[in-house]
Amino acid sequence: MTINNATAVAASERSQRIYQCLFRPQSIAVVGASTAPLKPGGRVFNLIHQHGYAGTLWPINPKATELHGVPVIPSIAALPSAPDLALIAIPSHMVLDAVTELAEMGTGAVIVLTSGFGEKDAAGKELENKMKEVADKAGMALIGPNCSGFLTTTYKGKFAGIVPQLPGGDVDFISGSGATVDYVMECAEARGLSFGTVINLGNSAQLGVEDLLKIYDENYNEDCAKILMIYMEAVKKPALLLQHARSLGKKGCVMIGIKSGATEAGSRAAASHTGAMATSDTAVEALFEKAGIIRVAGRGALIDVGCVVKAVKGRLSGKRVCIVTDAGGPGVMLADELNRAKMELPALSEKTLEELAKILPAESSIINPIDALPSRTDKQIEAIIRVLGELEADNLDAIAFLTGDSGLSDNAAIYQAISDAAPKSPIPILPMLSSLTSCGEKIDTFIRQGNVFFPDEVGMATAVGKVAGYFEPVEVTDRPAGYDQTAIQEALTGVEGALDPAIVKQVLLSAGFVLPEQIEVFEKEQLAAQCQRIGFPLVMKVIGPLHKTDVGGVRLGIANEEDALKTWTELMAINEATGVLLQPMVTGQEVILGASLEGEFGHLVMFGLGGIYAEVLKDVRFALAPLAPVEARRMIDGIRCRPLLDGVRGEPGMNVDILSDFLVRLGHLVADFPEIAEIDLNPVKGTGDRLYVVDSRIIMKK
Amino acid sequence: MTINNATAVAASERSQRIYQCLFRPQSIAVVGASTAPLKPGGRVFNLIHQHGYAGTLWPINPKATELHGVPVIPSIAALPSAPDLALIAIPSHMVLDAVTELAEMGTGAVIVLTSGFGEKDAAGKELENKMKEVADKAGMALIGPNCSGFLTTTYKGKFAGIVPQLPGGDVDFISGSGATVDYVMECAEARGLSFGTVINLGNSAQLGVEDLLKIYDENYNEDCAKILMIYMEAVKKPALLLQHARSLGKKGCVMIGIKSGATEAGSRAAASHTGAMATSDTAVEALFEKAGIIRVAGRGALIDVGCVVKAVKGRLSGKRVCIVTDAGGPGVMLADELNRAKMELPALSEKTLEELAKILPAESSIINPIDALPSRTDKQIEAIIRVLGELEADNLDAIAFLTGDSGLSDNAAIYQAISDAAPKSPIPILPMLSSLTSCGEKIDTFIRQGNVFFPDEVGMATAVGKVAGYFEPVEVTDRPAGYDQTAIQEALTGVEGALDPAIVKQVLLSAGFVLPEQIEVFEKEQLAAQCQRIGFPLVMKVIGPLHKTDVGGVRLGIANEEDALKTWTELMAINEATGVLLQPMVTGQEVILGASLEGEFGHLVMFGLGGIYAEVLKDVRFALAPLAPVEARRMIDGIRCRPLLDGVRGEPGMNVDILSDFLVRLGHLVADFPEIAEIDLNPVKGTGDRLYVVDSRIIMKK
Repeated sequence: MTINNATAVAASERSQRIYQCLFRPQSIAVVGASTAPLKPGGRVFNLIHQHGYAGTLWPINPKATELHGVPVIPSIAALPSAPDLALIAIPSHMVLDAVTELAEMGTGAVIVLTSGFGEKDAAGKELENKMKEVADKAGMALIGPNCSGFLTTTYKGKFAGIVPQLPGGDVDFISGSGATVDYVMECAEARGLSFGTVINLGNSAQLGVEDLLKIYDENYNEDCAKILMIYMEAVKKPALLLQHARSLGKKGCVMIGIKSGATEAGSRAAASHTGAMATSDTAVEALFEKAGIIRVAGRGALIDVGCVVKAVKGRLSGKRVCIVTDAGGPGVMLADELNRAKMELPALSEKTLEELAKILPAESSIINPIDALPSRTDKQIEAIIRVLGELEADNLDAIAFLTGDSGLSDNAAIYQAISDAAPKSPIPILPMLSSLTSCGEKIDTFIRQGNVFFPDEVGMATAVGKVAGYFEPVEVTDRPAGYDQTAIQEALTGVEGALDPAIVKQVLLSAGFVLPEQIEVFEKEQLAAQCQRIGFPLVMKVIGPLHKTDVGGVRLGIANEEDALKTWTELMAINEATGVLLQPMVTGQEVILGASLEGEFGHLVMFGLGGIYAEVLKDVRFALAPLAPVEARRMIDGIRCRPLLDGVRGEPGMNVDILSDFLVRLGHLVADFPEIAEIDLNPVKGTGDRLYVVDSRIIMKK
Repeated sequence: MTINNATAVAASERSQRIYQCLFRPQSIAVVGASTAPLKPGGRVFNLIHQHGYAGTLWPINPKATELHGVPVIPSIAALPSAPDLALIAIPSHMVLDAVTELAEMGTGAVIVLTSGFGEKDAAGKELENKMKEVADKAGMALIGPNCSGFLTTTYKGKFAGIVPQLPGGDVDFISGSGATVDYVMECAEARGLSFGTVINLGNSAQLGVEDLLKIYDENYNEDCAKILMIYMEAVKKPALLLQHARSLGKKGCVMIGIKSGATEAGSRAAASHTGAMATSDTAVEALFEKAGIIRVAGRGALIDVGCVVKAVKGRLSGKRVCIVTDAGGPGVMLADELNRAKMELPALSEKTLEELAKILPAESSIINPIDALPSRTDKQIEAIIRVLGELEADNLDAIAFLTGDSGLSDNAAIYQAISDAAPKSPIPILPMLSSLTSCGEKIDTFIRQGNVFFPDEVGMATAVGKVAGYFEPVEVTDRPAGYDQTAIQEALTGVEGALDPAIVKQVLLSAGFVLPEQIEVFEKEQLAAQCQRIGFPLVMKVIGPLHKTDVGGVRLGIANEEDALKTWTELMAINEATGVLLQPMVTGQEVILGASLEGEFGHLVMFGLGGIYAEVLKDVRFALAPLAPVEARRMIDGIRCRPLLDGVRGEPGMNVDILSDFLVRLGHLVADFPEIAEIDLNPVKGTGDRLYVVDSRIIMKK
């Protein structure tokens, strides 16, 4: 997953050209244009035309002469020049020829709307592959086939679903599924999120979500939204996703993403939808976390998180929320949910309480939640927000404002008070408006003023927790002291398969791990002397068989020379035994560190407690290598059994800084040597600062 | 928590009278009536009048002569006769006098809308108590103060929030918070749930949620809804809630409930809202589960679950769902979510696939999810539902139907097809309609035809999982064989505090538990002989100190007589030591069974694995005593470490039927003897069928 900067720069000019043709084309040809409102070619032409595309528009149709007053071109061959962009909406058997013709004449980009290719059958897949070859050869960008099109600020080139109505561009969207985007947009607009650029990629014969992310990132400009949503059913280029998600994050763009097909049933559904291959959801989860993409499961959460990010203008500064409500019950439910989402409801200062008491009647509750009662007025609301801003700006990270239709005062005035106060408030305001029916039009006015709102406390609190709890991507720091890459390289030169314990030892010591002293004995005569060097009690392990424990090849607590000699005889009788390894007995908690290669994702590093905790309770955490110290620490702190590491029932604990250091070393080791297929440090054991890699194995890639 | 049937029957006549006066009054007096639309007394009078109340309506106001043409009565004293019901909306300092006057003249029920009582200060609480005394003495029902009123099919007696518009009565609602109900109703109506009777209880000076539930249950009739929602911030009468929730369940009414104030922050908020005392949320959770109430955390889930129950007409028959969609992505997300909600997506039969292939174009996917593509028509939808009904009725428990606005066909026809097909389909249909904006009016028509819909896949799937996963209340069966209630009674007669081990042993053996043999030794001379009776290795425990382990009073693995004598000396040197208990060593897994009295909730029985599993991992389950075998089994199967009970890594497991039997015995023991404050069987230990209560203690209530 190392990023080659040279390649990135070289790609940039081509990337600019693709961006220009796909997002800001100066000429568009619509192959199969008509005015039939319910046919793809009709709908896409109508939309581009109706939404005032300012460039040159060429409808292509052999049977018409003009559409909506625009002169029709009879064929691709008759085009006066190669268009920047061509949208194709003709029967599937004619598509390859059209793509070929367009490629050969120098068209910049083609979007194939037509379906019936890879998603249909093998013959369709074959056609799709040929299209890609043609496009690749000509250096032409190819989107689709089987996609619903593009919405950009320059043109509305889609045939299915809706065209968003809300002005502005809070959100851009790159999606592997067209209907998903439409489903999201409909609900999101009703909540106050406006859309700028919306990209659907269909079958992704040539360009997929990750490729468009790269182009988007490389051309990110002031026209782009501050929120980028993505929807994927497969992650084919994880390194690209990671690189550009991180880059966008640095540019102030918050990414929120769905990778569906996460469960077994979902994965089957995704395979039949877009032919997505099953990927390890653990790897996807780790990738999103590392990339700083807020991952959600469905549309509702996508929208809720988008609303939080828009309302707070990026990240929440912390976890402290004050609830202002006009209704006790919803205030209690929201308090519950914020608590569950690991947010805090801090106490307000005495001074604040004094000021609030002047604003609200005596029956009000002015602790947090502040209950302004159904009789609340716009003046009161305005005053509460002002007081909180003046006195609690350092104490609060957000104000959750709940209001319904009490029937006792004018809600429009309340909404207006929030709308006016929000831009001035130093504390971001999250409005929860419940009266969707009786105040529908007033809420519509509220969102047209640029506000978002939340209809439900659980959705709001969960989203707030997500935004407050997600991690900004961290740069992986330099390799730690005592990590000798050259020495590891030497140890790994020319090896293959399951490595010899001596080589494993050399690798681990070179990487800076601490191992208990160990001595290999191959002659019975040397046993007694070497045992004396280690000291009793000690551990004896058979050398030779791979799964030592399974063949009874690990013997603990050897107390004296007599025991040792008896055990030697037993161990050497095991099949494939060639010798015996002596180690001191190490006591204390056992943990497991490991890493395995997950295809294009690179190595997934694992951490968990040993024994049944990992095996039965599945209490393990994963992250993609290499790891920054903060990521390693997050893994350690993330296991459910975390308290056990501090020691329980009077037993001593483990120094988690050293554990974290071990994880960082492991991350670098596998990232630097991707030829390692699997590595297990199992167990790492000890107490306090004295932690040892007691057993380990490394298997190289075939 | 034993139900006294005699009391229940005696209460019934009074309950009928209260029901009549509160829900079906023949005369209503509005004390403080006016026509001012934004004042409580004006609003409540206007609503009752405008919504065509058919009984006698008496506005009471000293300053007016008629309101909307209804003659005004100048004072309570001037009423021609005692009303069935009086609604009070006058300043708080005048309320007690009004209540007293109404009580003395024989008014059936009073609803006090006025606020400024217990929720305000101690003086208000005092007034509230006096009101209750007056009402109790006169046998008058008292609702409130500080409540927003009642909606019934007879009259609309509320002053705040909305009056629902949708005809029908899918849902009745009993709530401790008025605004919560309004917030719910607004959103629920927009989803197709109509409301019949809606009750808000405010401060509950006399009658609370549980009391109204009793009255509702005892008068449940064909006018009542099939879904009853409840909202509570405190459970004051758990036994009453349990009894009547179970009774309503048997009558076919599905209860869905919120008990908020579940977390620490929520509990603080609830205390300041309704003065709710903090109750153990563990006990609340156990109570709802035992009562068969589907518990949800917020409004969104309440509505989603309500929509599922309405759509499937009660319970789901199983966990098998088929997704029919017009969009791949949302189908994949729904599949993911259904999987997470522990639902299943079964494969369809060959015959079904053949039939579907005839209906849909070749590009469609016809596995489950069935993807009908954006080009879907009403005829296709109708045919799909028909085919599934004909061929898959035994294979499916629900059809989740997803459709958005594809822009390619008429959505109204699609909705109509679902609306027409649903009543005829043997498989319940759950419609997810996404195009809230572009199809808003069409969706409105759809719900006015009696349908519900879901806007989001996560909300739908979670609710489906809740409805499929909740447990119908079970009757607790007879006491198990070998449970000798008389013998236990004898053992517990006259005891107090922490019981003597000999009495604990007698109680447990009488209840049918299995204990390892144990011998108490008080004379050193008897030690050797008694050790021989038990057999080595054995366990020695000090007698006297309560927390034996803490004082080093438990010694395991005593191997021989010499060891035993040495240990005797050590144990007898412990403070308060009076003797030593001998037991055989028992090996195997350790679990903890316990029960403690949770006030009005009765005893909460606990089960978990011993040691760190319970202490650090909090991997324990609770249920209210007494327990049916199925409830005991659910506790055992509900712990995360459940696989450990079957044995791991070659270690033998435990017979969970015996564990379950122990839990049932424990449940009866504490339910039959509520004077037991705490009982711990810790550990219960052993392998296979040989499980023993190795250590135990019982503490009686003071």
